[in-house]
Amino acid sequence: MNDFQSIIKETAALVEEALDGFLPSQAGPLGRVADAMRWGALDGGKRLRPFLAIAAADMFDCPRTRSVRVGCAVEMIHCYSLIHDDLPAMDDADLRRGRPSVHKKFDDATAILAGDALLTQAFEILAEEETHPDGALRYRIALELARASGKEGMVGGQMIDIYAEEKDFDLAGVTQLQRLKTGALIRFSALGGGIVGGGSEDDLAALTAYAEDLGLAFQIVDDILDATQDAETLGKPAGQDAEMDKATFIKLLGMDGAKSKAAELVDRCKAHLERFGDSAAPLKGAADFVFERKS
Amino acid sequence: MNDFQSIIKETAALVEEALDGFLPSQAGPLGRVADAMRWGALDGGKRLRPFLAIAAADMFDCPRTRSVRVGCAVEMIHCYSLIHDDLPAMDDADLRRGRPSVHKKFDDATAILAGDALLTQAFEILAEEETHPDGALRYRIALELARASGKEGMVGGQMIDIYAEEKDFDLAGVTQLQRLKTGALIRFSALGGGIVGGGSEDDLAALTAYAEDLGLAFQIVDDILDATQDAETLGKPAGQDAEMDKATFIKLLGMDGAKSKAAELVDRCKAHLERFGDSAAPLKGAADFVFERKS
Repeated sequence: MNDFQSIIKETAALVEEALDGFLPSQAGPLGRVADAMRWGALDGGKRLRPFLAIAAADMFDCPRTRSVRVGCAVEMIHCYSLIHDDLPAMDDADLRRGRPSVHKKFDDATAILAGDALLTQAFEILAEEETHPDGALRYRIALELARASGKEGMVGGQMIDIYAEEKDFDLAGVTQLQRLKTGALIRFSALGGGIVGGGSEDDLAALTAYAEDLGLAFQIVDDILDATQDAETLGKPAGQDAEMDKATFIKLLGMDGAKSKAAELVDRCKAHLERFGDSAAPLKGAADFVFERKS
Repeated sequence: MNDFQSIIKETAALVEEALDGFLPSQAGPLGRVADAMRWGALDGGKRLRPFLAIAAADMFDCPRTRSVRVGCAVEMIHCYSLIHDDLPAMDDADLRRGRPSVHKKFDDATAILAGDALLTQAFEILAEEETHPDGALRYRIALELARASGKEGMVGGQMIDIYAEEKDFDLAGVTQLQRLKTGALIRFSALGGGIVGGGSEDDLAALTAYAEDLGLAFQIVDDILDATQDAETLGKPAGQDAEMDKATFIKLLGMDGAKSKAAELVDRCKAHLERFGDSAAPLKGAADFVFERKS
């Protein structure tokens, strides 16, 4: 197991444990919404976003107790967006990670409220003193997360994804959609980790550049996998982009063009991290992982 | 027009103007969600919550530029909760303040996303430096708002309201529901205004006690109005509580008991403010208004 694989496994376990603590089961009338929050946020997958936050903060010798909290906050935002996305009014998805989605397990009203509560709790965690003793750092992290996840970030991307005539998108349009819908939270993850670690402005700029290229590479590889893998390997339906005549990086760049663009981005990703020396090995490993993944 | 009536009119106008600035119309693919946010948040009513925040901050000579931002944040939370509450999966309400609710004017997906974006933007506004130059005050306000609006606050109250067997509630159960569903944001409003104004811990405790009694009095008067007024006066269906055999303060205390409880709370409200002298006149006026209102 290489450096990246062992660290992402380790950080995923830390995040799982911390989320379990932030989201206790409870008796009484609030038990149902508490259970729905747990259903939507626990037993997650690789926890890539928290990994990025924790690995970025590790480079500055930040105590894990702090960076795990930043990781949990971004993961709560990610999970709330999946819960709301899966609703019948949005993507109408019955399954998520092979299990019933929150509204199937509970119901639509509970899913809406559980999502709202996770979104709110993300900001509660960031505002608490345990995240960092310096209030100025805490509010900067909260501000960056709000911008990454609101109308000018993730929510805006979901809106475009639902309503824009994507088949008419050019490369700039597809890139903007990616930048908002998935890129903004990935960008925040590395940046938030750098902030909680106390990185300099130059450090933060390098982390931001890294995460922007990483997010774009991730999406291009997603498009490649959708076009080339079967459903069993992906764990979700394959070939949907072509079927829906969706503007993807494959359609716009061709398969070879998309592959070489992804490879170029991964190289650029790693180059942004040179200033951090050996301590950046886990983040560089994430870039290789994104490029080489098969599902 | 008395002190309270002129000031609440003034603060409502300030909040309307500020919200209009925070929520600009925009062209392009984000225009739809921007319009939905405006539809759900502008042209609001009395703006009682922002009034409480601004009037509390005024007692400490806080610049209105700061307290209006706290007022806008709590109003965005209030408005997002109405947008999500009105969804078919929740209360299924077609009208809000006499106009189509957001999901009727747009659609369910847009209403979900507009609510999510308003919730997120509330925390963005609080995290920005313009709210207060002292980061420690800003994060405390954000923390209080997160706690007031999340699972242990407003969202939890909505969950209880939807799922608990309310007809079986005793006085403690009805009081807890009120405390969470509407009380928590009212409590935050006065407290957040006191924090941004730089009040002492004793000041904040007095404001909190005031707002807790005010919120409870508000709910009791709501129950009284539902039982005694006609739909035209209320601007919404009347007599629904009795029809649904809902546990209300009327059912539990009787009409006379409810009226004397409300009067007692209003007196207590005002007593909590004695330490602030004449500067508390607008907040005292709010307590009288809550008691005397007819709709």
